[in-house]
Amino acid sequence: MTQTKSIVVERLIPHSAQKIWRALTAPELIAEWLMQNDFVAQEGHRFTFRAAPVPGWSGVTNCVVLKIEAPHLLVYSWGDGSESDSGLRTVVTWSLTPEGAATRVRMEHSGFRPADERGYVGMGGGWPRILERLQQVAARQV
Amino acid sequence: MTQTKSIVVERLIPHSAQKIWRALTAPELIAEWLMQNDFVAQEGHRFTFRAAPVPGWSGVTNCVVLKIEAPHLLVYSWGDGSESDSGLRTVVTWSLTPEGAATRVRMEHSGFRPADERGYVGMGGGWPRILERLQQVAARQV
Repeated sequence: MTQTKSIVVERLIPHSAQKIWRALTAPELIAEWLMQNDFVAQEGHRFTFRAAPVPGWSGVTNCVVLKIEAPHLLVYSWGDGSESDSGLRTVVTWSLTPEGAATRVRMEHSGFRPADERGYVGMGGGWPRILERLQQVAARQV
Repeated sequence: MTQTKSIVVERLIPHSAQKIWRALTAPELIAEWLMQNDFVAQEGHRFTFRAAPVPGWSGVTNCVVLKIEAPHLLVYSWGDGSESDSGLRTVVTWSLTPEGAATRVRMEHSGFRPADERGYVGMGGGWPRILERLQQVAARQV
């Protein structure tokens, strides 16, 4: 299929890029705002997010770290086609840009095909709350 | 509010950027794939899209052409806050990138605040069909 959709969420978070980067990359912190995981901040590292299964999705998301430029850019694949009915294979890109004492956080979740509409709708509703939780975790970092 | 969402749709269209650009910028063609309008391809031009009113939206969308780089980039504002209950003020960016004999078309509709969730969901479902119609109109150009 030749058409894909992306979800983009942008949020100005009143904390430094370093604090947000820590929340984005420390597995015990990722577990607080996103999901249980075995993330390691290393290009090529394979890891999984784990949540309770729901109809159409096993609850597991197989991922690979595609790119890291601390503390500004983090890219990982999200799904390898095996975990869900639709065969979801997407990419999540986090970009952090300082704006004074705050940081503009841009999350792009790209690659939803027409068959992935259920995931697109679900994640389109879910990401804004996830970024709110990310901010709360970042606020606690020193 | 500090958080916004965007809809991105990407489609590989098997036609030249010139044909697609014509469909994107000729008002009688725009009317076929999007809405009635008085678009003029000129930066600063103010125009409207017009459709049947629906609950929460007058059916009118007030726009301004923000940027034009034929045949690759077209940006216009979409909504000035006066037409809908939520006060929608968003931006639509069209980017055309040749890929061999085809053209990658990227549409980004950005600036949806939490109050604009109804518009985000509606347009998130609508844009893929709109791009299909855009392709059909582009296919007829010479």
